[in-house]
Amino acid sequence: MSYAHRQGIAKLGHIHLVTPDLDKSLWFWSEIVGLEEIARSENEVYLRAYGEWEHHSLVLSKGEQARVDHVAWRTERSEDVDAYQRLLEEQGISCQVVRPGDELGQGRALRFQVPHAGHTYELYFDIEKPQAPPETRSTMKNMPHKAWRKGISPVRIDHVNLQTTHQTVSQGIQFHLDMLGFRLREHIRLQGPGTIYAWMSVTPLVHDVALGVVFEPPADPVPARLHHVAYWLDSWQDVLRANDILAEHNIKIDLGPGRHGISRAFFTYVRDPGSGHRLEIFSGSYLIFDPDWQSIEWTEEDYIDGLIWWGEQRPINQMGSMALTTPA
Amino acid sequence: MSYAHRQGIAKLGHIHLVTPDLDKSLWFWSEIVGLEEIARSENEVYLRAYGEWEHHSLVLSKGEQARVDHVAWRTERSEDVDAYQRLLEEQGISCQVVRPGDELGQGRALRFQVPHAGHTYELYFDIEKPQAPPETRSTMKNMPHKAWRKGISPVRIDHVNLQTTHQTVSQGIQFHLDMLGFRLREHIRLQGPGTIYAWMSVTPLVHDVALGVVFEPPADPVPARLHHVAYWLDSWQDVLRANDILAEHNIKIDLGPGRHGISRAFFTYVRDPGSGHRLEIFSGSYLIFDPDWQSIEWTEEDYIDGLIWWGEQRPINQMGSMALTTPA
Amino acid sequence: MSYAHRQGIAKLGHIHLVTPDLDKSLWFWSEIVGLEEIARSENEVYLRAYGEWEHHSLVLSKGEQARVDHVAWRTERSEDVDAYQRLLEEQGISCQVVRPGDELGQGRALRFQVPHAGHTYELYFDIEKPQAPPETRSTMKNMPHKAWRKGISPVRIDHVNLQTTHQTVSQGIQFHLDMLGFRLREHIRLQGPGTIYAWMSVTPLVHDVALGVVFEPPADPVPARLHHVAYWLDSWQDVLRANDILAEHNIKIDLGPGRHGISRAFFTYVRDPGSGHRLEIFSGSYLIFDPDWQSIEWTEEDYIDGLIWWGEQRPINQMGSMALTTPA
Amino acid sequence: MSYAHRQGIAKLGHIHLVTPDLDKSLWFWSEIVGLEEIARSENEVYLRAYGEWEHHSLVLSKGEQARVDHVAWRTERSEDVDAYQRLLEEQGISCQVVRPGDELGQGRALRFQVPHAGHTYELYFDIEKPQAPPETRSTMKNMPHKAWRKGISPVRIDHVNLQTTHQTVSQGIQFHLDMLGFRLREHIRLQGPGTIYAWMSVTPLVHDVALGVVFEPPADPVPARLHHVAYWLDSWQDVLRANDILAEHNIKIDLGPGRHGISRAFFTYVRDPGSGHRLEIFSGSYLIFDPDWQSIEWTEEDYIDGLIWWGEQRPINQMGSMALTTPA
Repeated sequence: MSYAHRQGIAKLGHIHLVTPDLDKSLWFWSEIVGLEEIARSENEVYLRAYGEWEHHSLVLSKGEQARVDHVAWRTERSEDVDAYQRLLEEQGISCQVVRPGDELGQGRALRFQVPHAGHTYELYFDIEKPQAPPETRSTMKNMPHKAWRKGISPVRIDHVNLQTTHQTVSQGIQFHLDMLGFRLREHIRLQGPGTIYAWMSVTPLVHDVALGVVFEPPADPVPARLHHVAYWLDSWQDVLRANDILAEHNIKIDLGPGRHGISRAFFTYVRDPGSGHRLEIFSGSYLIFDPDWQSIEWTEEDYIDGLIWWGEQRPINQMGSMALTTPA
Repeated sequence: MSYAHRQGIAKLGHIHLVTPDLDKSLWFWSEIVGLEEIARSENEVYLRAYGEWEHHSLVLSKGEQARVDHVAWRTERSEDVDAYQRLLEEQGISCQVVRPGDELGQGRALRFQVPHAGHTYELYFDIEKPQAPPETRSTMKNMPHKAWRKGISPVRIDHVNLQTTHQTVSQGIQFHLDMLGFRLREHIRLQGPGTIYAWMSVTPLVHDVALGVVFEPPADPVPARLHHVAYWLDSWQDVLRANDILAEHNIKIDLGPGRHGISRAFFTYVRDPGSGHRLEIFSGSYLIFDPDWQSIEWTEEDYIDGLIWWGEQRPINQMGSMALTTPA
Repeated sequence: MSYAHRQGIAKLGHIHLVTPDLDKSLWFWSEIVGLEEIARSENEVYLRAYGEWEHHSLVLSKGEQARVDHVAWRTERSEDVDAYQRLLEEQGISCQVVRPGDELGQGRALRFQVPHAGHTYELYFDIEKPQAPPETRSTMKNMPHKAWRKGISPVRIDHVNLQTTHQTVSQGIQFHLDMLGFRLREHIRLQGPGTIYAWMSVTPLVHDVALGVVFEPPADPVPARLHHVAYWLDSWQDVLRANDILAEHNIKIDLGPGRHGISRAFFTYVRDPGSGHRLEIFSGSYLIFDPDWQSIEWTEEDYIDGLIWWGEQRPINQMGSMALTTPA
Repeated sequence: MSYAHRQGIAKLGHIHLVTPDLDKSLWFWSEIVGLEEIARSENEVYLRAYGEWEHHSLVLSKGEQARVDHVAWRTERSEDVDAYQRLLEEQGISCQVVRPGDELGQGRALRFQVPHAGHTYELYFDIEKPQAPPETRSTMKNMPHKAWRKGISPVRIDHVNLQTTHQTVSQGIQFHLDMLGFRLREHIRLQGPGTIYAWMSVTPLVHDVALGVVFEPPADPVPARLHHVAYWLDSWQDVLRANDILAEHNIKIDLGPGRHGISRAFFTYVRDPGSGHRLEIFSGSYLIFDPDWQSIEWTEEDYIDGLIWWGEQRPINQMGSMALTTPA
């Protein structure tokens, strides 16, 4: 297949999180994290960060239990959505069409489950880019909303970190590389199990998505899990300020602050108190522009340092994932 | 021409600066800026930042007067170098082949002058990625050299900002967009002269290169000028620390600290005291992942704010470019 | 006079600013700067920063024109207020007693004009330290209000910078040193005029107060002027974030960001848009614990660098003071 | 005793640490921490931070095992050294006179052991303030050495944190308050044992010294222990940069980064690899100017949050002290 006709993914678009306590989750994401509410439907609230032009990077809706409804990726071109449908269905992957407006601000889209891993992905291209209302609009022309209006105030969504089982992780990673066009940037490879964690991107970010094994086997047999969604801040100091804000609101910090080896990110993790979904407050990291990048391989000898270069060294099985996507 | 066969540029590679005082320039870039020296030939010194894998992002050599020898771009694929040669020669642009090893660590490359604007560009793909010697090697596997070893200690080269005349700027910009595959990210467009400054990239950076008019018409008729080369730091605080370091060594700060509107970068400008070439110490800014990005247009009404959002407001004609590339 | 019986000043307490546009000034200090409103009387609004225990560090009231009502200093002991009254009246300085409650939250106090310089000073000891209401109270026991609740969010008031004429500055400085117990920390001494600016403190801060000459002789013959009041932030990055916030609200930055030589402070200056009173957003600087400190003397040769070590170099006469205290 | 005649302590001066591996300790404090070497005698190396005027804030000497030789306090006046000698000897505390020059750069001084707690204190007033050599001298007149010359580059010593036994802590604290003029700023008071930890100062810092119980009863019966010595940095980001530097040199971080509740400091702890003596890399915190400050009391209910507001929550008994002072 020539590159000329190949459909492509341009970027991470948004994540739709289901929460059993929508009020508390909304308080967390809107007042504490500081995202801007863009729209509401009967069941959903649509939010974005101050530096984002697309209609939403986060959708919250109420449900009986915390789960990830879907993770959405924007394609390179409008016609790529259809091209992906053909490609996926050729592979025997069933696709569900999302009609324009089913998700507010969004055009026709496609949903399917990542084979084996089981996470629900959405592909879309057409999306509204609503202007911010005058009272929250930035005075800077290239920025949608005013910076620092409330809470932690991240600039944009950065990546999702997903988990699955030891049995399915290898095929899940391969699907991202072969079918979706992600490139492998860093990975943990152990003798025996092989590659158990992969950081992959379609952009120069070290990862738009990470996929790895659940650190601690959960009682629940559902394979498709979210470890965290990450939002980006410009400076490390802004991550420290976020810790102050969380502590001032009695929101327990999950892990951090600290610096990852893998991805070289400066981080703090915290869970949405309404749902348990985990947020990574994220700065630093690095960009990969090299077309011939060789994925950094971490092994038994160094992957612990890879996970945490400095900062809190929590036993790794205490960082288990909690929130689930629907298994079909 | 289908995208399938189209040659592409992946990233900014390096800049070769000629200086009349190599010792002073080397002191500046090595001790004050903190770049690592990788190799020396009879006439050149090759340096890179602590987060860079390629052999060099800066070449310094001695010459009678300060000038830019060339700006080098890495192609997407090895065969793109030849493809560009064919393409350029079809356009009547004469190309000079650089043999492997003519530039240390680099394979076969191509040089040509940007039509009208006159800057010398180099295209290459093959480049060595030498491991750092043990004593300066980072303990972090995904980072070549130890961070913070000396001086300001930036992570990597970020972009070049080039200038030319009012007569040639429009064609110079168009060449980048049409022939080299750059996308327009932000621009200043004035009534009458039209687009006088363009920020363009092949990556999600707001600019790998900016090309605009010389603010103050220089006495010298040479059209091809360098306004600055930029190196990146992770946090805004690191830029402030750079100001301390410059002040401690009696190196006059050219402009800053401040924040650009255009590119949203936090900056400080300083000149290499050996050559007058200008360095932008740079953090912040933003990434563009949207495939349908519409360039942000700045006009008579707002481009002054676009140049400086806050921080020192120097009359714009005092920020003239100084260093030249050879006009053939 | 032995030190045993000597009255003393412990710290800067508050400043009372009169503004012709109370609504706009209140918006600036409460929403943009982020001070907490503690109380209101018919004519005054009382505010404090999130890290302050005393009832107020800023009083705003409405008046026909911008002026400083008074600068208040807390004494070491309750009885020092009376001791100062005796001392000042012995020197022929007339004192006005402020009754408990005349200023909300404050006990008996004393007002007088600094001889020659003419600024109105208040001395008090008894002051309420009201607990913050539950919704703004910090979760940290040693901090009154939640950090980062709104706006720039400084921790505390730091100092005042006052100006007077060339004719009166020397006697004004001497009064602080001899009568009020301030120590000289840094000063500018020029041949001819002698000491034209003094940074003085009763604490280890480089200055609780600076007193110097008006840079540009104002048309108005009133000698007693305020150059600025300063509020403190923990990290330099917080000052940069303040610049963003100001720019997002179209509040012109007066000067900065930059670093003073004198006091080694990292600063940004901005004026209350309701009154023109100038605020210094301030971090860095240093502490003087040495009992035998020799004041740092700046002269013709270096005082310009002393004023601005790096950052915007505004011609000094453009940084004139604007707001006045009443000349009795 | 009237205040007029009362001797006083002005500030923490220095700490003398004995190390079994002087070369490694010197590498740590000079190259990694970045202190400037001022002088050497046969047995000692004298160092200070870039913002310090006194001859030394750290003395390193070689010994069989790691211990604290002494902690030195500068008095308010030269005659206070003698006054303290009289006072202490009246209390039955034996004093040892240190002759001028016995410690390089220092005049006549006094050494004694804190009753019960057993730490060796030195009192001095006369101390040289050598100018930095031209090559390391700051270009800023009020700063001795160039900032950021090497390593972490703190500005100055901040405080010492000492530990003793449950049996002696109460009397040790009381001695500081009654005899040495320290004021109580924050403390942990548990039912039963009473006050087990006290943060005390003669300056507006929250603590020049903390004295508390050893968290984990050591096998060794020596009561006088050092938990850590702290050096100050201007911005929180500088503490994060310090973590990078430590990690780049394979120096294990002991605890952090995190923020204390008590003292509100942003910290990272690390041990000198040559001796095990612990250093706190320290920014943030707050200043107490109030003459009527009431010590913040932490109890069973909140002292854990007091120790760590956010950041790594290490079980408290894993933070035991290691280095000892001589027990007579």
